[in-house]
Amino acid sequence: MPRIVQKYGGTSVGDVERIKKVAERIKGSRDEGNQLVIVVSARAGVTNELIARAKALTAHPQERELDQLLAIGEQETIALTAMALHGIGIPAVSYTGAQAGIFTDKEHTKAKIKTINAKPIEKDLAEGRVVIVAGFQGINEQGQITTLGRGGSDLTAIALAAALKADKCEIYTDVDGVYTADPRVVKTARKLDEISYDEMLELASAGSKVMQSRSVEFAEKYGVIFEVRSSFNHNPGTIVKAEVAYMEQVVVRGVAVDKDQAKVIVSNIRDQPGSAAKVFRALADAGIIVDMIVQNLGSQGVATLTFTVPQGDTHKAVTALAPVLAAIGGEVAVSGEIAKLSVVGVGMKTHSGVAATVFQALADAKINIELISTSEIKISVLIALERADEAARAAHAAFKLEKA
Amino acid sequence: MPRIVQKYGGTSVGDVERIKKVAERIKGSRDEGNQLVIVVSARAGVTNELIARAKALTAHPQERELDQLLAIGEQETIALTAMALHGIGIPAVSYTGAQAGIFTDKEHTKAKIKTINAKPIEKDLAEGRVVIVAGFQGINEQGQITTLGRGGSDLTAIALAAALKADKCEIYTDVDGVYTADPRVVKTARKLDEISYDEMLELASAGSKVMQSRSVEFAEKYGVIFEVRSSFNHNPGTIVKAEVAYMEQVVVRGVAVDKDQAKVIVSNIRDQPGSAAKVFRALADAGIIVDMIVQNLGSQGVATLTFTVPQGDTHKAVTALAPVLAAIGGEVAVSGEIAKLSVVGVGMKTHSGVAATVFQALADAKINIELISTSEIKISVLIALERADEAARAAHAAFKLEKA
Repeated sequence: MPRIVQKYGGTSVGDVERIKKVAERIKGSRDEGNQLVIVVSARAGVTNELIARAKALTAHPQERELDQLLAIGEQETIALTAMALHGIGIPAVSYTGAQAGIFTDKEHTKAKIKTINAKPIEKDLAEGRVVIVAGFQGINEQGQITTLGRGGSDLTAIALAAALKADKCEIYTDVDGVYTADPRVVKTARKLDEISYDEMLELASAGSKVMQSRSVEFAEKYGVIFEVRSSFNHNPGTIVKAEVAYMEQVVVRGVAVDKDQAKVIVSNIRDQPGSAAKVFRALADAGIIVDMIVQNLGSQGVATLTFTVPQGDTHKAVTALAPVLAAIGGEVAVSGEIAKLSVVGVGMKTHSGVAATVFQALADAKINIELISTSEIKISVLIALERADEAARAAHAAFKLEKA
Repeated sequence: MPRIVQKYGGTSVGDVERIKKVAERIKGSRDEGNQLVIVVSARAGVTNELIARAKALTAHPQERELDQLLAIGEQETIALTAMALHGIGIPAVSYTGAQAGIFTDKEHTKAKIKTINAKPIEKDLAEGRVVIVAGFQGINEQGQITTLGRGGSDLTAIALAAALKADKCEIYTDVDGVYTADPRVVKTARKLDEISYDEMLELASAGSKVMQSRSVEFAEKYGVIFEVRSSFNHNPGTIVKAEVAYMEQVVVRGVAVDKDQAKVIVSNIRDQPGSAAKVFRALADAGIIVDMIVQNLGSQGVATLTFTVPQGDTHKAVTALAPVLAAIGGEVAVSGEIAKLSVVGVGMKTHSGVAATVFQALADAKINIELISTSEIKISVLIALERADEAARAAHAAFKLEKA
């Protein structure tokens, strides 16, 4: 009997009526002869409500108590989903993260899964029940409730699929799958039938919001094949798996735009060994993730460092740099009016000319490139924010991504 | 260092502002040098909201899933209460029922506490933390979440006080304590400084809604002294404890009225051995609690049985009696227009004349008595519903309860 782990996000279980629809979908899959483990998120909005209540009591809620609080969101939806299944005659049983034996480290609000004791779930499956597991949460060795951080429910689903040796993992969300570009921006964008883990990871880091990188990395590590699909229709989604041979024929898989970056320019710093290291050490110590970096040498022994950081971190970055610049000289300036355009494809590493095609497409559209960075399977360029959508359409067309 | 268990009900923790007030009260008690364990209920209204959501999914939610669902109400308030304490600089840690080691039997929605493993709480207390425990919930040996049924949070507090050998247990509610009569009905009613477990139990069964009987019984069994007091002011409340010597001087402690009973009259049944047994066996099998009973013999070998049942059970009682009456003859009639007046006092058992005083007081007020029942420390009479308040005032005055 095929074993499938399905994950439903907060919008899919947003209210009683939607939970009923999810139950019908689960019934449909069970009627097809599948053994099912269901992972659910909290109802959309509940987590934010709880955080607001916590912050009304104390500016910085203790993380241990925050986890204790936030875990109730999924505990509600697992019980309601089980009841909805009972209501249509399907045997089902709900599991909190602790009951599902999802053991994590003790890092509250961003715990990592260490092991899963799958025995209780295996028993319920063998007895014919649908098992509903709370996403996003686990328990540490001290018996404390932990949560897994952003995208945690996807991670729960992927980890359960690995622990239960599931044949498949289905991530239900409010989009149909992974597209060659954002369909709201590029009208000719096409849904991909398949994509490799590495491409999915590069798309995530390039601003495609389908899934958090950590879940994809976990799936890759344990070889969990998963499908991203919509809970609002029955269209097939996008299957994410390891690179396969024929994939090499595809040079570029998709185009993504990240509008959530800001550009930081540190100018007039003394050009001496160690200056750049001091700058980026200060940023790393402040927990700021730096993406693209370029250094220009000036004429009088001074240099300029230009890099990007998440927009939410610009204030923190400027604060962190102040003592460093006091020591090595230089000024800092910030611009949020930029966007990062990325072109992603596993095939790229065996093909030259991809960069040239991107640059030519943007040049033809008279779009100026401010910074460039590359990985084995991605080329990213920094451009003006107001040209971003146009740039995405130009790159999408240049690689003929509208064609399968 | 004195150790106190405090319990706050759903109204006391009904919103963020009230939780802040509870935190201030806890701080006050801690500043006085007490070691504190706090039991909280769910926010007022939350449990009913969750039940409504459950019933929208299935008419009869499975009890195991209902417990899984309802337990989130207290899990929310424990975390918020801990955060409120952190916000005013008090070290605190929250415990779910499971984390507090409250082990129950496996009767979902009405579980009984079997044991409490107090070690983790003892450790946190020793390290100077205020411990916040979720009321109403526990865990069974299979790791399933259970709930304790009505009045469950009081029970959690009393049981923790016993397990932790607390010096005192304080039950915070929205009334100032236990009164000689309902102050809304009897203007001269006086708050009692002390009352015995047995009197409290009889008052509960007589319709005084301060606490469920099971919590009082549990306190009596384990000798837990508790105080019922208001969370909205700092007035001393009523201390509930075992009978003490001087109490015998007090003949009557209080007067209570129960308007939630209905009278059932089964008339014209054949007066033969076993008829009454058949009637009450049928009611017991249907799970109906019968309170006052009287049997009258008629003139032609027929008898009439009159008794009271909770008003919500009248339909069930009539249904349960139908097959019995088909066998032994007789008709059934129901009247909800009645009330039970009870006079309660431990001293009563060493004094004659209490019944006479009650009967005289009612006779003077021209209030007719329909049924009478007595226990060692209580006399109850059934009277017309519309005379109930007047009767309470008459009895209260007859025993001079307005005087300490």
